[in-house]
Amino acid sequence: MAIWDEFLSENDKVIYGGAGFGEKAGLGKRPAVLIVDVNYAFCGDKREPIMESIKNWSHSCGEAAWDAIPPTQKLLKAARDQHIPVFYSTGTDSRPDGFDRGGWSHKNKRTGKPQPITEPRGNDIVAEIAPIESDIVIEKLKPSAFHGTPLIGFLIDLGIDSLIITGTTTSGCVRASVIDAFSQNFKVGVVEECTFDRGEASHAINLFDMNAKYADVMSIDETIAYIDTIEKGLFDHKIDFQSAAVSSM
Amino acid sequence: MAIWDEFLSENDKVIYGGAGFGEKAGLGKRPAVLIVDVNYAFCGDKREPIMESIKNWSHSCGEAAWDAIPPTQKLLKAARDQHIPVFYSTGTDSRPDGFDRGGWSHKNKRTGKPQPITEPRGNDIVAEIAPIESDIVIEKLKPSAFHGTPLIGFLIDLGIDSLIITGTTTSGCVRASVIDAFSQNFKVGVVEECTFDRGEASHAINLFDMNAKYADVMSIDETIAYIDTIEKGLFDHKIDFQSAAVSSM
Amino acid sequence: MAIWDEFLSENDKVIYGGAGFGEKAGLGKRPAVLIVDVNYAFCGDKREPIMESIKNWSHSCGEAAWDAIPPTQKLLKAARDQHIPVFYSTGTDSRPDGFDRGGWSHKNKRTGKPQPITEPRGNDIVAEIAPIESDIVIEKLKPSAFHGTPLIGFLIDLGIDSLIITGTTTSGCVRASVIDAFSQNFKVGVVEECTFDRGEASHAINLFDMNAKYADVMSIDETIAYIDTIEKGLFDHKIDFQSAAVSSM
Amino acid sequence: MAIWDEFLSENDKVIYGGAGFGEKAGLGKRPAVLIVDVNYAFCGDKREPIMESIKNWSHSCGEAAWDAIPPTQKLLKAARDQHIPVFYSTGTDSRPDGFDRGGWSHKNKRTGKPQPITEPRGNDIVAEIAPIESDIVIEKLKPSAFHGTPLIGFLIDLGIDSLIITGTTTSGCVRASVIDAFSQNFKVGVVEECTFDRGEASHAINLFDMNAKYADVMSIDETIAYIDTIEKGLFDHKIDFQSAAVSSM
Repeated sequence: MAIWDEFLSENDKVIYGGAGFGEKAGLGKRPAVLIVDVNYAFCGDKREPIMESIKNWSHSCGEAAWDAIPPTQKLLKAARDQHIPVFYSTGTDSRPDGFDRGGWSHKNKRTGKPQPITEPRGNDIVAEIAPIESDIVIEKLKPSAFHGTPLIGFLIDLGIDSLIITGTTTSGCVRASVIDAFSQNFKVGVVEECTFDRGEASHAINLFDMNAKYADVMSIDETIAYIDTIEKGLFDHKIDFQSAAVSSM
Repeated sequence: MAIWDEFLSENDKVIYGGAGFGEKAGLGKRPAVLIVDVNYAFCGDKREPIMESIKNWSHSCGEAAWDAIPPTQKLLKAARDQHIPVFYSTGTDSRPDGFDRGGWSHKNKRTGKPQPITEPRGNDIVAEIAPIESDIVIEKLKPSAFHGTPLIGFLIDLGIDSLIITGTTTSGCVRASVIDAFSQNFKVGVVEECTFDRGEASHAINLFDMNAKYADVMSIDETIAYIDTIEKGLFDHKIDFQSAAVSSM
Repeated sequence: MAIWDEFLSENDKVIYGGAGFGEKAGLGKRPAVLIVDVNYAFCGDKREPIMESIKNWSHSCGEAAWDAIPPTQKLLKAARDQHIPVFYSTGTDSRPDGFDRGGWSHKNKRTGKPQPITEPRGNDIVAEIAPIESDIVIEKLKPSAFHGTPLIGFLIDLGIDSLIITGTTTSGCVRASVIDAFSQNFKVGVVEECTFDRGEASHAINLFDMNAKYADVMSIDETIAYIDTIEKGLFDHKIDFQSAAVSSM
Repeated sequence: MAIWDEFLSENDKVIYGGAGFGEKAGLGKRPAVLIVDVNYAFCGDKREPIMESIKNWSHSCGEAAWDAIPPTQKLLKAARDQHIPVFYSTGTDSRPDGFDRGGWSHKNKRTGKPQPITEPRGNDIVAEIAPIESDIVIEKLKPSAFHGTPLIGFLIDLGIDSLIITGTTTSGCVRASVIDAFSQNFKVGVVEECTFDRGEASHAINLFDMNAKYADVMSIDETIAYIDTIEKGLFDHKIDFQSAAVSSM
């Protein structure tokens, strides 16, 4: 049973399938991994129930975030072993006057206020899955990792045909990034265990929507089996995986 | 009670609100209207139950589509009376070899096949809300009305600060267009009665997500009250509303 | 001697080369061709001196345009023989109120006025190099063939790594398209004999600038030799070259 | 006499004007300033002849750069006095493996090599016109300040209708930024005295091209007279000019 089944109405179950949605698209031969916004702002600085966590980190997803860390570590290991490019996205710290927040400050007055710059910073990727030298970190202001960033040019330069997307929130920055990747004609996989949200219904229904229209929702095991089929070294002329491996030991 | 309440889990109800989501952003002083994909492909060629309608129009939303037509007519009348720019989006007909479908053909094998070009065409806006001469129709290949289209330049040329977005599907092209409008820092309103989807859970949860993060979900009455506050004639130097009004009589 | 040498100052000749500009980048293994705006608006409807031609076609490049047709025919034949994707760009007809012209109408009052729709239309590609069914025509409002169009998604879907760009004007739409292609990390070749402008200095210096920074300026013979090295059939799963060849006989 | 006259051919002088190019577009009511890449990489670390300067700074424009500093200071003072938003662009430091250089490393092998990180850094804006707190610095990888950056969203959020663009190189990043600004339907002014290039012909002809098609080439005096007509305080609700003025004293 899919995670979204309990959230669908009876009518929904009848209608879908009748229209050809949700078929497996499959992925291509030159994938990259994109880990969206798995930073302290969305995870909190330690595992605790979400109602506790949001007292200090208003955007935290609580335990759902920390459940996603071990499968994400597995994903990263598989990708790095195969010399597959790994991208991360995260936010940027706000100007004191909030100018750079744009639309965020319209919808959430708290976002407009400069966050206290504490340790760890909200925009730091959590240490358990921290980027290594060969990875590329994309700083962004908006939900999609493509919006106002150089990501698409990097993917073209590498000849990427598929993106494996994970992270948070399913209903926010993951979904926005998936729509943009799909719209640019990349094949897209979303790894269910590595993806999380603060809302249960939003998490489930956004996975359902993406799977119906834009992406294959995959398990971590399926994803690793796929990665193991990729020829090693496809991107070695562009990215120095060797030094990164050494320096991250 | 909001339409999404019955789809939220108990945890969801506790968590939201605690983090400052879903505040009213308000709209600005120079709005435009964007009607997304209200064409025969998504409505069918007549009002009938969705299970009937999808036999001929695989993407139809059935009766939900036709429920949205009368409030959309009210919205259009208000906007045109006030000389507010009206944009529509719709799809383009497929090449015989399906080349231009891109990612759509990965996820839905039916989409890859050229649709029979019947009367009415799937991509024709339904006659009840057909564009008039002063309106601008944006043809697009991807979910968002911004993606691969000149829309953003038109909005800049007009000095638009806010977009009132309606149409279909809530979980597809409406949501994608809303994310892009938000990401470009336009203020966004989504008119609930004028927006529809083939799925009940997807419709409700996508409204919830957009309202939480990117847009104000508004009633048609609120929207018309807002439009009535806009100074008439702001865009008359760019768009010939006069001739359009005459020729559409 | 390069075409630009007579337009450079003495200082220019000394400085360039000292900074590593103008090296050959080379092209990749998966090219596409892009023919920019070779339509009647920029060529006039027959070969005649530019001072004659601009009486009827204010944007005409005169004889320079018609000189470029035979080498463009050679380029097209080579590309189609090898089943390499061919893109064309051209403009769109103006609305009566000129709304869609945007910035063009600011800088050139004539552009703001709707052009008389005559036969041939200004936006029709000239018959001598007319597109066939397998080709893709990109309609655009702005100089670059990428701006506000779906071009980039098409290139990603095909896995294109290089663009061979020709057409007109060197200093306008060709240059804008070359900058965008370069910025997206495609390798770019510009075919000198197939590229033209209404201005002699602009033509030469824009070739110089592009060659220095963004593209390899190549002869038609070099280009055809390159095309002949491309594996045939790389794009046959996406584009139906077969039927096109038959129907264009 | 315009700076470009000596570089035009006799034919050029006859043809232009006949086609309606180069009319003054005028600027709007809500301008911003954009200073492109006036950093040590393009200026060198002190005023010296270009042939000297490029020994240490391969992209330096030599004395032309330093001639542009005093008028740029005048422009900045006028803009800040009037509380007009000031944007700067500059480059980003290269990764050791050069991955992020993309197309630049194809055309210029030196660009691919990581530059020694010296003091001052090549990407630092020169101290004489250094940004103050209220200014916004856009870091970019490609010629245009719009490409892969959040610039356009900032301009929309501010309701900007016009951009005053200056900096370097005229034939590179200035021109690319001007084309993008024009294509997005902003009105564009280029201030001649504040704009420079390493090449004399490229500088002149690119000013000519931009003035013919995309922008008004203006003197610094004209520009300041224009700025003085702008209502003060239009952007005070978004940008904290007050604290910036104090802290930069």
